[in-house]
Amino acid sequence: MKARIHVTLKNGVLDPQGKAVEHALGSLGFDGVEDVRQGKYIEINLSETDPAKAETQARDMCEKLLANTVIENYSVEIA
Amino acid sequence: MKARIHVTLKNGVLDPQGKAVEHALGSLGFDGVEDVRQGKYIEINLSETDPAKAETQARDMCEKLLANTVIENYSVEIA
Repeated sequence: MKARIHVTLKNGVLDPQGKAVEHALGSLGFDGVEDVRQGKYIEINLSETDPAKAETQARDMCEKLLANTVIENYSVEIA
Repeated sequence: MKARIHVTLKNGVLDPQGKAVEHALGSLGFDGVEDVRQGKYIEINLSETDPAKAETQARDMCEKLLANTVIENYSVEIA
């Protein structure tokens, strides 16, 4: 099964990378950019074939390694 | 409108960040991890209210700044 994981900064946490992109877009002449937030996207191929077990495993990976749950949210999709 | 952009490395392009995550997951005792690929996830709030125009604008941003189209693919969703 394939796990698609999004890790994003929580609201209210400063996102310097997003701000840098926002300014760069402004410099390039893109108008109407109100806000940019940048996160991580991780695709994991798991040998697990049961979707429920694969999701549990992927969430466990997020808690233990992929996300810093103090400042980041994560979401897991199994496909 | 909100644009959700995924930027991922093309197949065949070495992904050291993904490999590092793969090894770290192995060290933490996660079995059955076959492959890990890491990309970027970018959320942009646009003042544009027409979905078609917003998508064109977001794709233009990807071509000019957000993705290196030699080694990266991108996808845009408008919501």
